[in-house]
Amino acid sequence: MTATISLLTDFGYRDGYVGVMKGVIAGICPTAQMIDLTHGIEPQDITAARFVLLNAYPYLPKNTIHTVVVDPGVGTSRRAIAIQTPEGYLVGPDNGVFSGVVAQFGASAAVSLTNARYWRTSELSKTFHGRDLFAPVAAHLAAGVPLENLGEPVAVESLDAGSIPEPDVSTQKAIGHVQHIDHFGNIITTISAAVLRRGNWRLALRGVSVALASAYDDVATGQAVALEGSHGWMEIAVNGGSAAAYFQLAVGASVQLDKG
Amino acid sequence: MTATISLLTDFGYRDGYVGVMKGVIAGICPTAQMIDLTHGIEPQDITAARFVLLNAYPYLPKNTIHTVVVDPGVGTSRRAIAIQTPEGYLVGPDNGVFSGVVAQFGASAAVSLTNARYWRTSELSKTFHGRDLFAPVAAHLAAGVPLENLGEPVAVESLDAGSIPEPDVSTQKAIGHVQHIDHFGNIITTISAAVLRRGNWRLALRGVSVALASAYDDVATGQAVALEGSHGWMEIAVNGGSAAAYFQLAVGASVQLDKG
Amino acid sequence: MTATISLLTDFGYRDGYVGVMKGVIAGICPTAQMIDLTHGIEPQDITAARFVLLNAYPYLPKNTIHTVVVDPGVGTSRRAIAIQTPEGYLVGPDNGVFSGVVAQFGASAAVSLTNARYWRTSELSKTFHGRDLFAPVAAHLAAGVPLENLGEPVAVESLDAGSIPEPDVSTQKAIGHVQHIDHFGNIITTISAAVLRRGNWRLALRGVSVALASAYDDVATGQAVALEGSHGWMEIAVNGGSAAAYFQLAVGASVQLDKG
Repeated sequence: MTATISLLTDFGYRDGYVGVMKGVIAGICPTAQMIDLTHGIEPQDITAARFVLLNAYPYLPKNTIHTVVVDPGVGTSRRAIAIQTPEGYLVGPDNGVFSGVVAQFGASAAVSLTNARYWRTSELSKTFHGRDLFAPVAAHLAAGVPLENLGEPVAVESLDAGSIPEPDVSTQKAIGHVQHIDHFGNIITTISAAVLRRGNWRLALRGVSVALASAYDDVATGQAVALEGSHGWMEIAVNGGSAAAYFQLAVGASVQLDKG
Repeated sequence: MTATISLLTDFGYRDGYVGVMKGVIAGICPTAQMIDLTHGIEPQDITAARFVLLNAYPYLPKNTIHTVVVDPGVGTSRRAIAIQTPEGYLVGPDNGVFSGVVAQFGASAAVSLTNARYWRTSELSKTFHGRDLFAPVAAHLAAGVPLENLGEPVAVESLDAGSIPEPDVSTQKAIGHVQHIDHFGNIITTISAAVLRRGNWRLALRGVSVALASAYDDVATGQAVALEGSHGWMEIAVNGGSAAAYFQLAVGASVQLDKG
Repeated sequence: MTATISLLTDFGYRDGYVGVMKGVIAGICPTAQMIDLTHGIEPQDITAARFVLLNAYPYLPKNTIHTVVVDPGVGTSRRAIAIQTPEGYLVGPDNGVFSGVVAQFGASAAVSLTNARYWRTSELSKTFHGRDLFAPVAAHLAAGVPLENLGEPVAVESLDAGSIPEPDVSTQKAIGHVQHIDHFGNIITTISAAVLRRGNWRLALRGVSVALASAYDDVATGQAVALEGSHGWMEIAVNGGSAAAYFQLAVGASVQLDKG
């Protein structure tokens, strides 16, 4: 049996931190298949990590152990947790990074990772639980250790639920926010594709009328387009360019659809 | 049997897009070995992707399935293709990214990826064929599905042949172009090592005489050198520095060897 | 048997160089498990590569083959070497990158990689020994070739010993240096955790008093803290920020603890 472990951190690509976590995993469960989601989350950006995990989660194999280390509270009293979801497991700090997946897909059980038997060492570093706690726990799960052995049960309702502003949708308008800007400068909003598909909307951003279409190339090069993104959210792009640079919008900015 | 899938995209390192593709592949063909060529291609830079693939291709194991997603035309009528080469397979958009490999190493067959049975879903996203089409097709090839099952045959001659300016070579001079600048700032030209080896050349760039030698360290630190690069092209470097910064040359700039 | 090969280079994330090395390894030893330490070392920064390897080494599985290609002298007379350590192997140029591991963990044997039978080709590129020499040698080690077959034995004492300034420690003060700055802007010094733990120290940097504590979150957001880093060195951080930006300190700068 090959178990898959996904890894999502803000460790970047200059240090050896991610390699160290993989080394620890390989030492405990040599057959685990490791898939990097990204290590390019901005330092301590829990919201971005939440977004990336939520949108990647449905596409990883069943029983994948998603290991997230975006952990500004490392070494303090924030809980370390493992969560069982219908399709797999989530391992990391209880700081809201898992709140998107839990809200959308549900969770059947959770434990606080208090059983030091499954840590790398009982003398945890105060700054690198990825190495000493989360990687070994993920590897033990991959090797078949049951969730309930990893520590004390905690109520799913007690997990950090994060907070993402809900869009304000009526028949006349839909007001959402920028929830993510990707590598291409595409702007991903909190307005769902389902709302967008209702149709009869028009969109203006910073005084520029934005075409509603279905593919980037439906507009001329350099033109803006709003479409249903691959994540299932309304996305604003510039064909052949960066919408974030074009509109100078940042995460949290407001975006409004009006009745057309 | 372990099949190798190489991945080459412009998705960068901040989002979960590459991890999603790997998740889809692992779900279809758990034993596939995945090797990243790079995901750091500048957004939509087909020429750079073509260059990286061409120069990596000979070094991957036989039967590797090279999966390229640099795809500015995603969601439009550009074809999605799979190509059989003497040593493996190419999967991606028909936009010229494969033209270097096909011109240099040949191709024996190609299909348009029209058989939705091998897609992730018949409702393709308009913006992320890497996830919905190219990753699953690559995984099915890795799992043993024959190329001809993937869609309708297309003539190899009909594939996008790209366009790279040919160098102008005579006994008196060789005029080529900058085709790539790598991470170190090394300038890779379109002048072949074979032409360079003929010898008796001299090179001046922006008024600076450049030594023709064989290793970076053949010149003093901070000095420029032209040599046979590991790709088989004439490469211009600065020992311990960046030739691109030193000479302020960009892709497409002209480079001329004169009879010495 | 699955052997692990770790990879550490300054090749960056834009080119295909790392993928080429992995392709060569997979062609020789398809079962080798490859773990990236990082490819984001600044070009030719041997000191940074030495630091990352030293701090990752203890966490990789036993018998890992650590392959390092940070190689400003490629193509010149610098030796290519393989070293046997108590827990694994080191493969790369003899330029000091291995000096940290050898000094701290020891080495029992070393060879100069002169046996062309284990190269990819006897016609080595002058610029890319990662592809033609180090990757194939690492793969052959992974496949079971004994170290002594790879070339002529060399004395461990003859290996490049690097040079890192020793801290100056007394009962009254401890003067060390900045040896590394990580992705988060954390400043890692050459003062050991053992010295820090003696206690009764105070630290001022650029006129700012820095709290001595044990976790990043022991101080308020935006405040500086010195603590025992996960590497075992005294580390200076800013809670929720970048200490390197805050203090404008670079590698090599002096850091002094005084009796409190």
